[in-house]
Amino acid sequence: MWAARSSNDMIGTLSKDASEALLLSASVGRIGCTDSYRTYVVPIQYVYDGQFIYAHAVEGMKIHMMRKNPSVCFEVDEIKDVHHWKSVIVWGRYDELKNEYARYNTLLLFAKKSVQLKISPNAIPPPIDIGNDQPLEKASIRPVIFRIIIEEMTGRFENMLPEASTGK
Amino acid sequence: MWAARSSNDMIGTLSKDASEALLLSASVGRIGCTDSYRTYVVPIQYVYDGQFIYAHAVEGMKIHMMRKNPSVCFEVDEIKDVHHWKSVIVWGRYDELKNEYARYNTLLLFAKKSVQLKISPNAIPPPIDIGNDQPLEKASIRPVIFRIIIEEMTGRFENMLPEASTGK
Repeated sequence: MWAARSSNDMIGTLSKDASEALLLSASVGRIGCTDSYRTYVVPIQYVYDGQFIYAHAVEGMKIHMMRKNPSVCFEVDEIKDVHHWKSVIVWGRYDELKNEYARYNTLLLFAKKSVQLKISPNAIPPPIDIGNDQPLEKASIRPVIFRIIIEEMTGRFENMLPEASTGK
Repeated sequence: MWAARSSNDMIGTLSKDASEALLLSASVGRIGCTDSYRTYVVPIQYVYDGQFIYAHAVEGMKIHMMRKNPSVCFEVDEIKDVHHWKSVIVWGRYDELKNEYARYNTLLLFAKKSVQLKISPNAIPPPIDIGNDQPLEKASIRPVIFRIIIEEMTGRFENMLPEASTGK
């Protein structure tokens, strides 16, 4: 499926493999959810294991919305400039992980990705409540850990060739 | 408003000025819309003139959704890594610009921003239908031009200090 805006534009649909590759390589996406009244879009750190999209968040608007309406949209992109970008959009269902084993395994996925990306292990959400007897600045909120069960995935790209290559 | 996850985390709310500055400096945001059944999040090039967010798109899912439900969410971020980022979220209303004068002025805003960003003027949407008598590769679709009337804006940031600075 191709659409051309001019002779040197290349806009098209990403293959399933290319969409998967972008989901695997990126580490931040934007999650969109709605309570039917309003839409909420928020950037979120995630890990994709080839089947599910895992993320964590503190309790707040997006978690409340997704509990009410688990139908979500998840978007990941890689934008070099307005003519060189790719974007994957996933539709799926919010699935909160309450089981300690599933939560632990998700933290391991984040730890593994942190090592790959060479980012601080502090990016891993705290697994244990510190409790109210700790000083405020040491206190930590037990994060909500969830996954997105993918129902549909679509990817697009634009890769405009340089003007010079047209021979004009 | 501050929340600390550990003694060297800095997470907070962006000031109105800092939120405005991010909206002015960025050129790509993600628009979220819903038809109540599903949510759609898609990256979009935009210009903010200090009052409205202007964008253009070809007819498609997002335009159909926003015509049906003009309540949208618009998100812009600047992410260095998981501990150094800022994000602005705008709630507002989709307002399609059909008047030729308003459309022309929007194109001028995009042209001005393109010069600022030193990007190709091809990023500017074509203002005039080329028509069906042109070869397919030269054909162009008249874009939908719209603005978002801002109703609410909120910004957040994280700026974790390096571990070393805690003196540990």
